Formats: sequence, structure tokens, C-alpha cells
Amino acid sequence: MSISSDIQNMIKNRRKGYTLEAPFYLSPEINALDIEAIFGQHWIFVAVEPEISEPGDYIKVDIGHNSVIILRDDDMDIKAFHNVCRHRGSQLCDDAKGSVGNLVCPYHQWTYDLSGKLIHNAHMGDDFDKNIHNLKPVHVGNIAGLIFICLSDEPPADFEVMKRSMEPYIAPHQLANCKVALQEDIIENGNWKLTMENNRECYHCVANHPELLNSMYEFGFGYQPSPENAEKVQEFRDLIETEANRWATCGLPSEEIDLLDGCATAYRTQRLPLEKAGESQTMDGKVASQKLLGSFTQRNLGGLSFWTQPNSWHHFMSDHIITFCALPIDAEHTLVRTTWLVHKDAIEGVDYNIERLCEVWRATNKQDSTLVERTQRGVNSEWYEPGPYSPYTEELVEKFTNWYIQRLEATLENPEFIKKQAAANAKTVPIMVCR
Amino acid sequence: MSISSDIQNMIKNRRKGYTLEAPFYLSPEINALDIEAIFGQHWIFVAVEPEISEPGDYIKVDIGHNSVIILRDDDMDIKAFHNVCRHRGSQLCDDAKGSVGNLVCPYHQWTYDLSGKLIHNAHMGDDFDKNIHNLKPVHVGNIAGLIFICLSDEPPADFEVMKRSMEPYIAPHQLANCKVALQEDIIENGNWKLTMENNRECYHCVANHPELLNSMYEFGFGYQPSPENAEKVQEFRDLIETEANRWATCGLPSEEIDLLDGCATAYRTQRLPLEKAGESQTMDGKVASQKLLGSFTQRNLGGLSFWTQPNSWHHFMSDHIITFCALPIDAEHTLVRTTWLVHKDAIEGVDYNIERLCEVWRATNKQDSTLVERTQRGVNSEWYEPGPYSPYTEELVEKFTNWYIQRLEATLENPEFIKKQAAANAKTVPIMVCR
Amino acid sequence: MSISSDIQNMIKNRRKGYTLEAPFYLSPEINALDIEAIFGQHWIFVAVEPEISEPGDYIKVDIGHNSVIILRDDDMDIKAFHNVCRHRGSQLCDDAKGSVGNLVCPYHQWTYDLSGKLIHNAHMGDDFDKNIHNLKPVHVGNIAGLIFICLSDEPPADFEVMKRSMEPYIAPHQLANCKVALQEDIIENGNWKLTMENNRECYHCVANHPELLNSMYEFGFGYQPSPENAEKVQEFRDLIETEANRWATCGLPSEEIDLLDGCATAYRTQRLPLEKAGESQTMDGKVASQKLLGSFTQRNLGGLSFWTQPNSWHHFMSDHIITFCALPIDAEHTLVRTTWLVHKDAIEGVDYNIERLCEVWRATNKQDSTLVERTQRGVNSEWYEPGPYSPYTEELVEKFTNWYIQRLEATLENPEFIKKQAAANAKTVPIMVCR
Repeated sequence: MSISSDIQNMIKNRRKGYTLEAPFYLSPEINALDIEAIFGQHWIFVAVEPEISEPGDYIKVDIGHNSVIILRDDDMDIKAFHNVCRHRGSQLCDDAKGSVGNLVCPYHQWTYDLSGKLIHNAHMGDDFDKNIHNLKPVHVGNIAGLIFICLSDEPPADFEVMKRSMEPYIAPHQLANCKVALQEDIIENGNWKLTMENNRECYHCVANHPELLNSMYEFGFGYQPSPENAEKVQEFRDLIETEANRWATCGLPSEEIDLLDGCATAYRTQRLPLEKAGESQTMDGKVASQKLLGSFTQRNLGGLSFWTQPNSWHHFMSDHIITFCALPIDAEHTLVRTTWLVHKDAIEGVDYNIERLCEVWRATNKQDSTLVERTQRGVNSEWYEPGPYSPYTEELVEKFTNWYIQRLEATLENPEFIKKQAAANAKTVPIMVCR
Repeated sequence: MSISSDIQNMIKNRRKGYTLEAPFYLSPEINALDIEAIFGQHWIFVAVEPEISEPGDYIKVDIGHNSVIILRDDDMDIKAFHNVCRHRGSQLCDDAKGSVGNLVCPYHQWTYDLSGKLIHNAHMGDDFDKNIHNLKPVHVGNIAGLIFICLSDEPPADFEVMKRSMEPYIAPHQLANCKVALQEDIIENGNWKLTMENNRECYHCVANHPELLNSMYEFGFGYQPSPENAEKVQEFRDLIETEANRWATCGLPSEEIDLLDGCATAYRTQRLPLEKAGESQTMDGKVASQKLLGSFTQRNLGGLSFWTQPNSWHHFMSDHIITFCALPIDAEHTLVRTTWLVHKDAIEGVDYNIERLCEVWRATNKQDSTLVERTQRGVNSEWYEPGPYSPYTEELVEKFTNWYIQRLEATLENPEFIKKQAAANAKTVPIMVCR
Repeated sequence: MSISSDIQNMIKNRRKGYTLEAPFYLSPEINALDIEAIFGQHWIFVAVEPEISEPGDYIKVDIGHNSVIILRDDDMDIKAFHNVCRHRGSQLCDDAKGSVGNLVCPYHQWTYDLSGKLIHNAHMGDDFDKNIHNLKPVHVGNIAGLIFICLSDEPPADFEVMKRSMEPYIAPHQLANCKVALQEDIIENGNWKLTMENNRECYHCVANHPELLNSMYEFGFGYQPSPENAEKVQEFRDLIETEANRWATCGLPSEEIDLLDGCATAYRTQRLPLEKAGESQTMDGKVASQKLLGSFTQRNLGGLSFWTQPNSWHHFMSDHIITFCALPIDAEHTLVRTTWLVHKDAIEGVDYNIERLCEVWRATNKQDSTLVERTQRGVNSEWYEPGPYSPYTEELVEKFTNWYIQRLEATLENPEFIKKQAAANAKTVPIMVCR
């Protein structure tokens, strides 16, 4: 695609510290650019290892109009392929998940093995070259059980930085040793960036998330300092220090890393104390599953959070893990997939109760969905104009927005992209559509 | 937005006395122009006073993608604001109507008083300037209880002409002393101009509106003179004269004013006799509410009609009032909101029966909706071409269409608009959309 | 409309033997071109005579946004008109079929006789010229009871070639002497060309159409020769020869005609033996209706198939006929209308059972619909690229695609089209849409 100079100007002139111009939340053209330049060029979180634990297990993930199959092959490696038959273009897999021996196209039975190699097709003649009709591969990254894909031919190399840093934080929770207790998809009626902006602040929590605030400290996610809150803030800081020291003795790093801005593969992490019983993100702060993860023996390990740009966030506790993945459907709709994981040997009804496990985030997701939809409706007004982020409570939102603009700029300056753009402009004449 | 020369040519070359070219009823680009140049620059009827009778009462009205809050403030003044928080752009009000003390954004609790002033917001820092973050106001006009808004910074000044002329007609019905007996929204599957064209003639009434014709005289809305109808027409003219004299003694003006064409704020009014019992637009022509409006003592006051460009029509009788407001949803869908009002002290089940009150126009609206939808489907054909209006029965349709074209021309010649257009063209390069 | 050079290049550079580039299956712009250049310029199959057997009988057919009325007039001739009133553009007929004396517009009762002549309209004044406001006619062609229309002013003349060739094949089945036993519409979630490509091969039958394969020989629709199938193939060829000779004695031609490629009015026909009982396309191969068609006395007359570009296929057996018509709704949706016909004197429940009659193709249509939808989803991926057709089983698909590209080329080279295009470009300036 080529980008109008109008959009290029909006990218260049973005006012720092402010929300984006309306077209970034509304325009199908910019959404196509997002799919190409953001979701097509960066590492996208899409799944967790326990979703494809056995050889032949696969899941299907749609990113915009692009469908990808992620599977475990016979060597237990994770592979990903575009879900498009090389014959007539039929999708190979309809279902969101399943298990197969080979990938057989339901249309004319072209058959690919789990490495994507075309191994069977009838009626194509003796001279037909199978080798140039294999499935198109997609890059896969794995951080302690969190599966990322990258659609680009040349994925950002700094994925390795994130992986090296994050593995010591996540590994103790032994994600690969978990099972999916529940996975729920909701469709938010808003642009994916509103979903992400909403996720990057807790300024809205007090009035909107009563369930979540049971276990979350008021001062954990930004506040404007004042004489009134000085004492409470100091208490919270002291608590963090105490707990961090205790967790260190369990081999659990908790120090904040904030690289949400400046890198292609941008992320942030921190382990923070929890409120009430302090064990888990539940209504009473106590664990939701009696079977602790990994080799944990203590319940009060706080909550390790991991946020990635452009599209995920995760919470790891002593007893369960929750991962979230946001994927654009179109300019005004976003899929949010939430996955709750417990120890693979935990037994429902004995070790955990599914309603209790999911209660907080089911409610929180629903509340967030309403907030995103209401904002989408608001930015639709011609009288909307970018508004200011709080310097205290919306710093991470600003980092998200800043990163997004930086990545678009990087794309527009990419020689490969400029070449494609010039070619597209050269062959484009004004289009007149009848009506 | 900038307007293609193609559309500019269609505007300039519109054939008088004929329906519009198909793109005016179909094109999203022209619909965007309508929202900007017609609904964004003119006085739009949106509500009646009894909908917001107490301080803090508000209603929400959507015009295209633009949402507006209309409310009564603590001084009993009517104010209107864009329904967009100045922080992150969230809509402030979700509900179609309600009552509030202040306008509190549900996202982060930014709080505006009923004059639109930002009076509270947390976490924004001590240097934050509240004064430049007030709600954006919308102009409000009020004609004897009919509430109009204008989204433009410079509303047409001739609203005052309409107001001065119309108040003597409407005031005796004491709209502000009424209550809403029922309000119903229907979505017509057609362009808003087809809704309006349909409203501006009764050529279609004979075959389509049996209920309405109970109380409406055949000759009230145009006919081709012929020897066969000469006698009946004369009888009707005589009746108008007799009744007009009688109404004059009650202080009720009835003379036709027709300024549907030529003014920015265009309208028409006339009080005409009704058929059968001659009292009201009901199935038998008798009043629907026993409690007469204002200080009326007579029931047979005919029907005072008031039509405005671009989007409303109204009928005032001795016992009840009906107002209609048409608002574009998109190029092919239009909201029609109908409000039935009776005396505020009238008691349902005693003074009036809701089914009987609404029977005629509920049926008529439904019939009109079918006519509009069928015409929308027809103009969608590439073989549709503009057809001739009847010089006898479709004069008001021609005036509507003519006014519409005039107003677009006025916009295109507006120096402000030309400047914006030039700027838009300068920064636009051809856009190539991938698929 | 004018065509972007981008699309023109895709047309010129189409790789032979391969599926089309993705935009041909997805782009609204190309769909508009298809409606204009393919469905607007060629003969389109739309109905069968028994649907309008009596004077005044009509059916309504929508091609893209264009609605057409096809009717039988008082002289028993078949006529077609655009379903658009010449007054305000209302559609005249809402219903898919019906029977009328005249065509009366439901809006203002403009009345046209069955020849399309405007014979009545009120209120238009004495100087009004009725003669220039007749309904716009559409060309009609009839091949032994199969009704085609052409929207172009200058329909392709080679319709007569197809008609002369096909009548001897079809006439013996006496279509006009049949009745519609059932007509069913399904909407396929795919571009109309995917519907047609799917129809033009049986490579997909083995794995997808168990019901259809009861009566269809494996070798009837293409295969790659191999030592393993050599004997079976020879048997099938011998059977064709034997049967063709027998059918010839009944006056039934069976020889293949293949003009799917190269002509404006492109088609293919062949009568082939059927499997099992060999009588009809049913689950057991036996006739579905005991009342044979025409003057047939033998049941085992095989299946006469007739395929046309761009949009139909038909199967004629000794006892029943099935016709299929595909019409684009938009770029990603296609209407498929299936009509089952039996002898007009056949009695349901006595001579035939509706479930049994329709069992095979109801199932087959549903299976095909799934295949088309799955392919539509696949070609939506940015990673889809055109794939190779089998030289053995997808020859007719290649002929369809080739014909389609040829016809677009012919349109682009048409002086009339070039003139319109130049005019459109001259008056077009870049359009900037706000968001």
C-alpha cells in the first residue's frame, strides 16, 4: 500500500503527551497501515505452549485478514504457517484449534506435513514441482512458554533481548507445565490502540474496576503526589522493598524493567505486592488454585506483570497465570483473548473453581470493553481533538502511543517501504468510483 | 474534506424540477458533505422543551457521527455541548436521556458543570490549565418550545426571522406546558433526502395513507385543477376562509408563510381545516386528549403545520402536538424521531388513550418508511435517472431539493470552505488502497 | 466508472493457468467493474419459462444493485424492464414474483402496461410527455425455455450461435412444459468468480460430494491418466460411445461442444451416462419423478449438462431438470438460485417426492458453499498468491478465468469504454476523504 501525505503529516506532527488524531482510531487506511507496519513487522504475542502441547496440535490465529496456523511438529518444535493452500488459496484449517497428522486441504486434498512441505497432490501432472508449493512459513519466538510470531521476513532482532531478560522472571512459574483452565474471546467495539491505551493505565480503575482493586494496590500504577498521600505512598514503597528482598530469596526477580519506548520489541515488567491476602488476583486476594505452580511453596509471591508492545499483557501469580492478547479485526473492532492457566495437575472442583478463578478478570474485561467502546464513539465526533495524558498516571499510555508513532516513522523511512511506495504511486492514477 | 470536481459538476448542473442524480442518495462522500455543509451549518430541530423540563435533565442527539448533549442548566437555560470528554475523548453520556448534577466522564471522572466548565480532574498536575479544557459548546435556538441546535461557529442569523414569525402561530399551543406522551424512533432504510422529499408532498397519500386521510382534506396539499374537481376545490377554499376568520377571533394566525426556498433558515407554515370531526389528526377527526392545550376552549382549531429545512415537520392541534425530526445515520439510513405531546396535566387512561393518540402517525410513519426504502432501492439502479416533479403536487419537494442544492453551492462558494479545500488538496496525493 | 492503471496491469499480466490475483476476489472496485463489464455486457441466465407461464406473471431479478422485472405480456411474449419508476425512481415490484395486469408504481400510481408504456399518471399537467417516460427495456433471449437477459444496449450477437446449437439438445426435454417443483436461494460468502471456478471442476467432488457421486462417473470431469486407471477409463469411453449411439436413435444429441473460451457468449454442453441406475441425479440413480419429460419413454437418458459464462449451469435428465444461476451481491457475496423442474402434470406425493427430488443438489450446494467461503477467507490473506490449475481436472476453470480476463480486456479496448473513461478522468480530481 502507499500512504497519503496527509497521514504522513499526522505521523510527523503528532503532539507528544496527547492522544492521537481521530483518523488513527477510525480510518480503514490507517488500520491497513497498522496491519502492515505494526502487526506485520513486529513480534506479536498469540498463544501459550499448553495450547499445543502434543505433536499435531494446532491453533489458528487471525491478524486482520491474515490467518496463521501455529502447531507443534513431530519433533516437539513449534512452527507457524500461513493458513492458505498453495493451490487455489483455500484455508486449510477452519477450527480455532485441533489436532492433525498432516495438514490436508479440504478442497482438493493437497497434503502438507507438519514442516509445511507439500507431500501429496493428485492430478497435477508428472512435471509438477512440489518444492515450490510448500506452505509459507511464519517466524516463531518462545519466551518461557509465551509464543510470539512475526509475519515479517526480517523480524526485529531485539526479540532476543526481551527473551534473555524475561526468562528469569517467568521461568519459575513453569508455564509449559500448566494447562489452560479457560480461554475467552471478547470483541471490543473499538480500535486496537484504544484497547492498548486503556490497558496501559489504572487511572480509570478506581471508578470502574471494583473487583480488580481488591487485590491491586492503589499506588501501584501511578498517582499525583500530595501531602495527603505521602505517608501511604511511603508505606507502599517500603512494602515493595521488603517483599522484593523476600522474593529474591526464592529466586524471583522483581525489579522493574521499562523498555516500552525506543525499541522495536518493546516491553515492561515488574513484580508488585498484592492487596488483601496478597496471594493472587482474586476477590479476597487468596490463591484460586491450591496446586501452586512450578516448585513454589509460598503463596504470597505477588503479581509479576509483563506488558509488550503492540499487543499483550500477562499476570503471573503463585497459583495461576493470565495472558491477554489483542488483535485488530478492523479499524473499529478488536479481539481480546484471555487465557487462564493453572498447574496441569490441578483438578477442577478440587484444587480450583473455574468461576472463582476467572471472576476478577471476566468482570474487568467487560468493564474495559465498555470504556473502549465509549471512547471509540467519542473520537468519532468531528469535534474530538487530542487530549492530554496525565504525567502521573498515563506515562505508560504515552509510551505506547510514542512507540506506535516511532514504529510508523521507522516504517516510512525504511528504504524497502519507500521503494514499494514509489512503485505503487507510479502505477496509480486517480480512481473514480461511480457512487 | 475536499469535494471532487465530479460532485461539484453535479451540483452545478442539477436539472430544476427533477429529482437528484443517484450519487446524492447513495454516495458516502456526498453524505459526508451533507453532514458538514447541511447539518453542520444550519439550524437543526432536535427536541422539545418538555424533554428537559428540570435542571440537569439532558438528552443525547447523534448527527452523523457527532454526538451532542442538550440539557437544562440550573438557571433553567437550555445549553448544548459536544458529548466528548476533553481528556481522552470518551463520550460523557451513554443514555438517550437522563438527569445529572454535573457531567462526569465515566472514564477518569473529569467533571464538568452544567455550563460545560471543567471543575474537577485528578492527577493532571498543578500546572494543568482547566480553562482550556471545557466542553465544546453548541448553539441553541428555541421557538416557543421547539429546540434547534446549530453546530456551526457562525449560525445563520435568519433563525431570528423564523422565530419572530413562528412564535405567534405556535405559542398559543403552549408546548412548554405539555408532556411527552410517547416518543418513537424508526430507522428508515433510505437517504435522509428521500425522507424529506417524501414528507414534502401528499401526492402519495391517497394510495398509501388511509389512516392519515381520515382527517386530511384531499385538496390541502396540491392537485392538478380540472373541471371535475373545480366545485370541490372551491368548497375547500371557502372553508379555509371561513375557518381562518373564526380562528383569528381566537387569536390564532393561519395564513400560509412559505420561505422553503432562498433562505439559509427555510421553513413553511399553514393552519388548515381538518376532515371529519375537524378537531385532530385521529381516525375519526375528534380530539385524542380531552384536556385541551393552552387556554383553548374550542376543539376544532384545525391543524397548524410547520415544516423546516433541512430536517423537521410538526403538527399542532387543539389537544395534542406531534413533532418529527429526521437525522442522517449514513448515506442509506435515516433516523426519524416522532414525539407525541399532550397537556402536562392530561392523565393517560382518563384524558387520553395512548394507542388512539398515536394510531394515525404510527401507521403513517410505517407506510412512509416503506416508500422511502423502495425508492432507495430504485435509485440504486444504474438505470435510474432523475425524474420530473409534478408542478401541482410536488412544488414543496422541488423547494426542498432546490434549497439543498443552493445551500451546497453556498458552501462551495464560501471563502472559508474554499481555503480549507485548497489546503486539503495541496496535501493530498493519490491514495492507493491495496484491495 | 474509470479503471485504475493498477487494475489494468493486473488484467494484462494475468498468469495463464493460475488463479487470479487476490483483488479480483476482494476489491469493491473490481466488483463494480464486473457488474459493468461482465454482467452489464453479456447474456445472463436468470429464469425458466415456467416461472412466468401466464400473461402478467413476473419475476424480479437483482444483478448487483440493478433490479430487473421479467414478465410475460398479453401476447405471451417475454419482456424485461428495469424495476425503476420514471417518476421518482421507486421500485415498481417488491416481491420476487407475482402476477399483475399493469405495472403500477406503489408510490404515486404511475401506471405502465406490460409493454413498458406509461399509460397513466396524475397531476403532471397537460403538457407532460408520457412517451419519453416509458420503462427502460432490457434485452431478452430464450433458448428452449431458458431465459437470458442482457443489460447492454448492444448485446453480443453470438447469442444466436449458442441458441441454434443448444436448442436441439434441450428441446426434447420440453422445459416450457414443466413446472417448478422447488426454487431455493442460497447466499455464498464468496466472490461470484469463486462460485464459478468451483462449479467448473469436479476435482473437489471425491472428498466433498458423496451424494452427487452416487450418479456421477469418476472419469466424467477430468483425471490424470495413469496405468492404474487406464482400464476403467477405457470402459467409460466405450460406455459413452454405446450410450451416445442409443441416444441418437431417440433423437438426442450428446456430442460435446466446448466454446467456453474465445466467444462473448461462451458455453459448453455434453450428455454423459450416469452411474448406478443411470437414470437421474438421485441417490440411487433412479428417476425422481415417474412422469417423464416431453415425449420420453426411456428413463436412462443420462445427464445433459449445459454450462454458460458468466453465470449458469444446468442438468437435464429424463424426469427432471435442474438450473443454477449465480449473481453477484457484492465483492464477497453471491446469490446461487437453484430451480428443480418436473413435468407440469407430475403430482407431488404421487409422481415425485420433493425431498428425494432435491436431496442430491441441496446437499451439494451446501458443500460447495462451504468450499467457496473457505477459499474466500484464504484469498483474503496478504500471503495468498495465485496457484496453479491442474492441466487434467481444472481445464474448464482455466477456460472460465481466461474468458473472464479476455472479456475485461475487450471492455478496456472498447472505444466507447475508453471515451467514457477519458471523460471520467478529465473531471476527476483526487478525492480526500476525511477519515
